[in-house]
Amino acid sequence: MKIEIFDSTLRDGAQGEGISFSADDKLKILQRLDAFGVDYVEAGNPGSNPKDMEFFRKAAKLKLKNAKPVAFGSTRRKSITAEEDENLAALLEADTEYVAVFGKSWLLHVETILGTTPEENLNMISDTVAFLKSKGKKVIFDAEHYFDGFRDNAEYAIKVLQTAEKAGASVLVLCDTNGGCFPDEIAETTAKSKAAVGAKIGIHCHNDSGCAVACTMAAVKAGAAHVQGTFIGIGERCGNTNLSTVIPNLQLKMGLDCVPKHSMQSLTETARYIAEIANIKLTGTMPYVGGNAFGHKGGMHADGVAKNPKTFEHIEPEKVGNERSFLLSEVSGRSTVLSKLEAFDRKLDKNSPETMRIMERLKKLESRGYQFEAAGASFELLVLKELGRFTPFFNIEHFHVISTQNYEIEGVEKANAMVKIKVGEEYEITADEGDGPVNALDRALRKALEVFYPKLRKMHLVDYKVRVIAAGDSTAAVTRVLIESTDGKSVWTTVGASKDIIDASLIALLDSIEYFLHNK
Amino acid sequence: MKIEIFDSTLRDGAQGEGISFSADDKLKILQRLDAFGVDYVEAGNPGSNPKDMEFFRKAAKLKLKNAKPVAFGSTRRKSITAEEDENLAALLEADTEYVAVFGKSWLLHVETILGTTPEENLNMISDTVAFLKSKGKKVIFDAEHYFDGFRDNAEYAIKVLQTAEKAGASVLVLCDTNGGCFPDEIAETTAKSKAAVGAKIGIHCHNDSGCAVACTMAAVKAGAAHVQGTFIGIGERCGNTNLSTVIPNLQLKMGLDCVPKHSMQSLTETARYIAEIANIKLTGTMPYVGGNAFGHKGGMHADGVAKNPKTFEHIEPEKVGNERSFLLSEVSGRSTVLSKLEAFDRKLDKNSPETMRIMERLKKLESRGYQFEAAGASFELLVLKELGRFTPFFNIEHFHVISTQNYEIEGVEKANAMVKIKVGEEYEITADEGDGPVNALDRALRKALEVFYPKLRKMHLVDYKVRVIAAGDSTAAVTRVLIESTDGKSVWTTVGASKDIIDASLIALLDSIEYFLHNK
Repeated sequence: MKIEIFDSTLRDGAQGEGISFSADDKLKILQRLDAFGVDYVEAGNPGSNPKDMEFFRKAAKLKLKNAKPVAFGSTRRKSITAEEDENLAALLEADTEYVAVFGKSWLLHVETILGTTPEENLNMISDTVAFLKSKGKKVIFDAEHYFDGFRDNAEYAIKVLQTAEKAGASVLVLCDTNGGCFPDEIAETTAKSKAAVGAKIGIHCHNDSGCAVACTMAAVKAGAAHVQGTFIGIGERCGNTNLSTVIPNLQLKMGLDCVPKHSMQSLTETARYIAEIANIKLTGTMPYVGGNAFGHKGGMHADGVAKNPKTFEHIEPEKVGNERSFLLSEVSGRSTVLSKLEAFDRKLDKNSPETMRIMERLKKLESRGYQFEAAGASFELLVLKELGRFTPFFNIEHFHVISTQNYEIEGVEKANAMVKIKVGEEYEITADEGDGPVNALDRALRKALEVFYPKLRKMHLVDYKVRVIAAGDSTAAVTRVLIESTDGKSVWTTVGASKDIIDASLIALLDSIEYFLHNK
Repeated sequence: MKIEIFDSTLRDGAQGEGISFSADDKLKILQRLDAFGVDYVEAGNPGSNPKDMEFFRKAAKLKLKNAKPVAFGSTRRKSITAEEDENLAALLEADTEYVAVFGKSWLLHVETILGTTPEENLNMISDTVAFLKSKGKKVIFDAEHYFDGFRDNAEYAIKVLQTAEKAGASVLVLCDTNGGCFPDEIAETTAKSKAAVGAKIGIHCHNDSGCAVACTMAAVKAGAAHVQGTFIGIGERCGNTNLSTVIPNLQLKMGLDCVPKHSMQSLTETARYIAEIANIKLTGTMPYVGGNAFGHKGGMHADGVAKNPKTFEHIEPEKVGNERSFLLSEVSGRSTVLSKLEAFDRKLDKNSPETMRIMERLKKLESRGYQFEAAGASFELLVLKELGRFTPFFNIEHFHVISTQNYEIEGVEKANAMVKIKVGEEYEITADEGDGPVNALDRALRKALEVFYPKLRKMHLVDYKVRVIAAGDSTAAVTRVLIESTDGKSVWTTVGASKDIIDASLIALLDSIEYFLHNK
């Protein structure tokens, strides 16, 4: 059975905290979602945002294979005709085949927010849908607050759906706008509502009770055949239904047909790409696509997966384009390291002299505060170096960082860094300033390196984590720094540890740069 | 109806990526969970980790009101007696009233992982539970992979439960260890299993399908009366059931009795405290407790909430100690701050001009990256200063810190700091060196201050935590520093935030010194 996927990353997702898309960002994401194979991409509200109109003009010129761009708006305002409503005019101007319009289905909203009568609200819905149909549009009707409305007055809520259907809407979307519903209620209400109309039923959930995915699946089981959400779950408050979770749930586990079969293997890459454009860090624990979604830390779990992945994994990570990883921790045993080494080079087993040497080295570094569990790139570099398979790209000769603050002057002064590097037989010395000593050193180092390796401009840091270990040693304790970097396609993490935070940061930074230069 | 809450932040949560608790961190979290009112705190595996034994020794000395610490282990190994098993001996040595032991209920695991027969597995369960009972323990039995096992061979899975019950287990916990189940299956299996035994049924879910919360609620509806999870959802792979979501779902929305009624208002504060100790950023979108869980960005939503909060919120944020926000900044609960202020000075209420001013100042600092939840001493100083009740002990005129490294010389060079301070009309300028810029500055500052305040020698730092906030901004992001200090009698915590780690550290350090000079 085909389930339509309607992605609202660019509309409802843009309501998430700290999210802001340029028209160009939106075009990139639209094309990526199209390549992945979703059916609809809701991309903005042209009536309320002029930036969105620009986007729709450019989007119309793209050759898309799967995704239909959708412009979003509301039903006409009260006491005017649809023809008079400038928001509806903007919707038409966006020039999309499909439009999504939302209308009220909860009397509390009709009265409190619209300040009108139940009858006029029905007229607003009917007029709007009919007007858009008369202009050749296909109309997706979002019944806002449908579940709250149904609980309050089921008869009226159903009347709203029937009104939209009669006026020509092709999909009737039941929205849990406040996100507070549980799956049982969603299932029951969806089934009852579907029985009362003939058009396709859609579902739109929010995650305020932590149940958006389960609610969406409950609606599908109850007959919904159109699923709305955002690809990585971003959205107002606690976010929307996470499509990167719900699509594999429906397609891989329930056998429903959501996206082209081969797309599933690019699920993880698509999620990471969207996070990158949205400029947010994808949560490591996100089902299916998170960096740690298939990460095994406990010794028993790691051992079990090595024997048979099915013992501790609900699906094979390859199916969604993700990877199994073994986190190295004090709880996990030597066997975790071994299986990692074996994956790296099949000739390495627990008795190889190289293995012994690498184990020794790891132990020594761990006793100095390193932790490789989340720093796969540093681990890989360490192995490469121990196996003699790594050729250095550069050396640092020396650096100087100066932080200074005169309290008679307002504001925080920039820190300054000077660095000298050697590449082959050539030297480069330069300086830069930054917010704090680490930032200053980072900037100066890149400035020097980019002279030799201009492609370094393609990589940048996405996260920088500092952990002071060995509590009780105060400001002289060991500092562990984790740096996450990306080139827009993949993400890698490196680690450094030292008593000196600048030294620890530099080690992690150098690993990150070396990993990029070696692999990319 | 009472639903027992079993928190495994300190055991299963510690399996999360990047999570590592010291014995001291664990004691802090145990006490906080006790104050919040959970029933059980599973806190470690004394058989596999010597650090955990140290924790249990210290935990035994605490006076806890609600929470019973639980030591965790597995059933005895095959082909030996329970008496011979050193892990069971360690479980007893942890000296807790309750122990949790896990056993296999999926034949795939019995064969692949244990390499034994179905009968011997039942004997292992029976012997282990009976042995622990004979030593006076109350036993919680975790049926690992219960749902996978039940799907594979329901008869055997039920036999496992019956065996544990017969041997004396008081709770039988059905675990979705791989996290791949959906709520319907959980509900059906839980109901069938409950019908086959008499003991209390528990539920333990993981979030690999994004359904852990819904699965847990489905199990409760089907008869489970003991809920396992971790307070902020951390755990292996995609994490465990998030208790800060499931507790309000069950208690506020379904009317079940999980924790003391008044605790619910400290839900958000408790979640943030645990995140702080775990040194992770609490996801802004986390239901109920996230910084953005009640954040309204869309104009329509913000307007609607202003007219009537019910129009766009599933519950009132005050009920869980969170706050509505229309901004993008992290602002801590106003009601929390108010109750703190009232505790500080009974004349202060929400309408006092001083309260307004303090609130303004807090908001401003929080938008700059400060967080006062774990920094009571900084909060107290801020209040004292705003009330005009604090007289400065000294001023810093300026400082210079130099970090330098010449890679032609072995080892890490010390950083150097020079600082000039003013006390009354006198000046002192001095310098010192240290491991890294922060340590050097700390040492130089104390050297200067001790000339005037020799009693400063009595205080020292016990912990120094660094958190980089606003991920995505790499090494130029805002850094928040938490410093814990002691004079041997009491412990106080201060906070500083800045783009520059030296600046942030210095702010926290100065607060710590000022707090000591003012109070001690």
